Amino acid sequence: MGKFTLRYKPYTLELRHVFTVASFSRTTTPVVLTELEYEGIIGYGEASMPPYLGESQQSVMSFLSQVDLSSFSSPFETAEILHYIDQINAKNTAAKASVDIALHDLLGKIMGQPLYKIWGLNPDNIPATSFTIGIDTEDMIRQKVQEAGQFKILKVKLGLQTDKMIINTIRSVTDVPLCADVNQGWKNKEEALEMAHWLKEKNVTFLEQPMPKEMIDENAWLTERSPIPTIADEGCQRLIDIPALKGVYTGINIKLMKCTGLREAKQMAELAKALEMKVMLGCMTETSCAISAAAQLGPLVDWADLDGALLIGNDLYKGMTVENGQCILPESPGIGLTKE
Amino acid sequence: MGKFTLRYKPYTLELRHVFTVASFSRTTTPVVLTELEYEGIIGYGEASMPPYLGESQQSVMSFLSQVDLSSFSSPFETAEILHYIDQINAKNTAAKASVDIALHDLLGKIMGQPLYKIWGLNPDNIPATSFTIGIDTEDMIRQKVQEAGQFKILKVKLGLQTDKMIINTIRSVTDVPLCADVNQGWKNKEEALEMAHWLKEKNVTFLEQPMPKEMIDENAWLTERSPIPTIADEGCQRLIDIPALKGVYTGINIKLMKCTGLREAKQMAELAKALEMKVMLGCMTETSCAISAAAQLGPLVDWADLDGALLIGNDLYKGMTVENGQCILPESPGIGLTKE
Repeated sequence: MGKFTLRYKPYTLELRHVFTVASFSRTTTPVVLTELEYEGIIGYGEASMPPYLGESQQSVMSFLSQVDLSSFSSPFETAEILHYIDQINAKNTAAKASVDIALHDLLGKIMGQPLYKIWGLNPDNIPATSFTIGIDTEDMIRQKVQEAGQFKILKVKLGLQTDKMIINTIRSVTDVPLCADVNQGWKNKEEALEMAHWLKEKNVTFLEQPMPKEMIDENAWLTERSPIPTIADEGCQRLIDIPALKGVYTGINIKLMKCTGLREAKQMAELAKALEMKVMLGCMTETSCAISAAAQLGPLVDWADLDGALLIGNDLYKGMTVENGQCILPESPGIGLTKE
Repeated sequence: MGKFTLRYKPYTLELRHVFTVASFSRTTTPVVLTELEYEGIIGYGEASMPPYLGESQQSVMSFLSQVDLSSFSSPFETAEILHYIDQINAKNTAAKASVDIALHDLLGKIMGQPLYKIWGLNPDNIPATSFTIGIDTEDMIRQKVQEAGQFKILKVKLGLQTDKMIINTIRSVTDVPLCADVNQGWKNKEEALEMAHWLKEKNVTFLEQPMPKEMIDENAWLTERSPIPTIADEGCQRLIDIPALKGVYTGINIKLMKCTGLREAKQMAELAKALEMKVMLGCMTETSCAISAAAQLGPLVDWADLDGALLIGNDLYKGMTVENGQCILPESPGIGLTKE
């Protein structure tokens, strides 16, 4: 009967570019890195805390200091361990994900297999990842788009007065498909529908969180009429949210930091598919640790947005890589990390 | 790069008692036993064909003869292999399950772990199994109930004119909780509701498939008013059926032979839970092969009805056992079988 040791430390990700979305700008993202050790095997995890999620390094470390795994005798008691973690409190989803990811990495290493193999998924089926172009000046947008030449799909952040300028600027440089993330930035359903039609003409593939999550009827109205799919991001946190979103959005964006980690994320992808909804797999700015964890689920989803580690300058791991816009999963066990 | 070999042979299960439900009686159940070999490791599977499912040994073997796994290079391509199997035709769910079970047994053996551990489930959380008392004479019912002294819950087959006699006869011998399986036998919702109230007083825990599956509005009417949960059996075959059953029944009965096997069964259990529905895990008369496969999912469900191998006299394997009504999972890899 083994013993678990959970270690954690704060780390600050430095963004390559100032990152601007509809509600704020920033140059760093705080994270907490975790290690879960059991009988000499170490699993790696990570919590990423973009400020709008309401978590901080302090809140995550405070949460992790409360975690006591001494009553569990094996990492294979996964469902019960993660249920225990989840019921510590009602929030701290990123902190919970940092334990879930480390536990799954540990389990994969014990079984000697990458998680995607344990789940029976073919890594060749991961969609090409999108690459995010933040809100910026015309010159900077053109420069960012040119730097992103390898990507088969770009993600643009909309929701300010500059929406059409941004799209037109990108279209002056490239014809690749786009996805548009409005981050709740639009407040009027008729204008949102008009933009959806305009974006469709500009070869935009889907529309993420067009209006505030509280505007449920308006989002449903838009989804019914929109010529491109709508995807819930802020409007979909966890498994329990999904059934009520059928009809409100075409699909959901699953992120480990919102949903407490891989176990629930996998169930969310399978639930959404069962409800005939589309599934997008997203991320925060994260090291290759959390990104490589999320990528294990990539073969289950319709769209992948796994550029988080590409947006930072001080990654600590090598894991999932991107070649010609395609996500390449490591073949090593668990989430497949090596330290840089 | 390995090669798959799929072998199969017919086998006839001999029932310990003549088995009577609302629509028929029988003394044997035809099955087909499968073996899936890959690089010297063999996974075991089984298709069980009670006649009302519309499959036969011939139809299963005809299906299996069409299976060509030569384009797959690894059992870890599970999702794609099972998608290929499923699209061979729209029926033959038991035949498909016989491949799914063998593939999962093989995968567990390759990873050196029982499936419940790979899925992170604690085997101590399997509910006690119910044991089925078929429709019979009063004397035979009393004898069967006495033979079933170890079980914590008994399942009775109702749906004929003898319903109250059966319950009263059992209640003259034992006070253990019962579950009532009507097999679509009732045709009138008011009478069904009256029976539900009467059964509640007799300590019946839930009501399985009270009316024909086509009587959707009537089943929903009953579910809304019934003092005990209603469970869809004939009314729920596969994952895709579940969303529409929310509100029509309180829960669903998942059986590997209906739903093509373990992969879909696990998704069904998780979907039903996400929709806040109850989950029952059932079986056909089967050897310990298919029963031990289903039992791997036991920790996910509310009620287990895994008595299929106990009802036959010529089991070929040792796997899940029942002690004092509790399901005991083997600790060996895959589904954990040894040949008798």
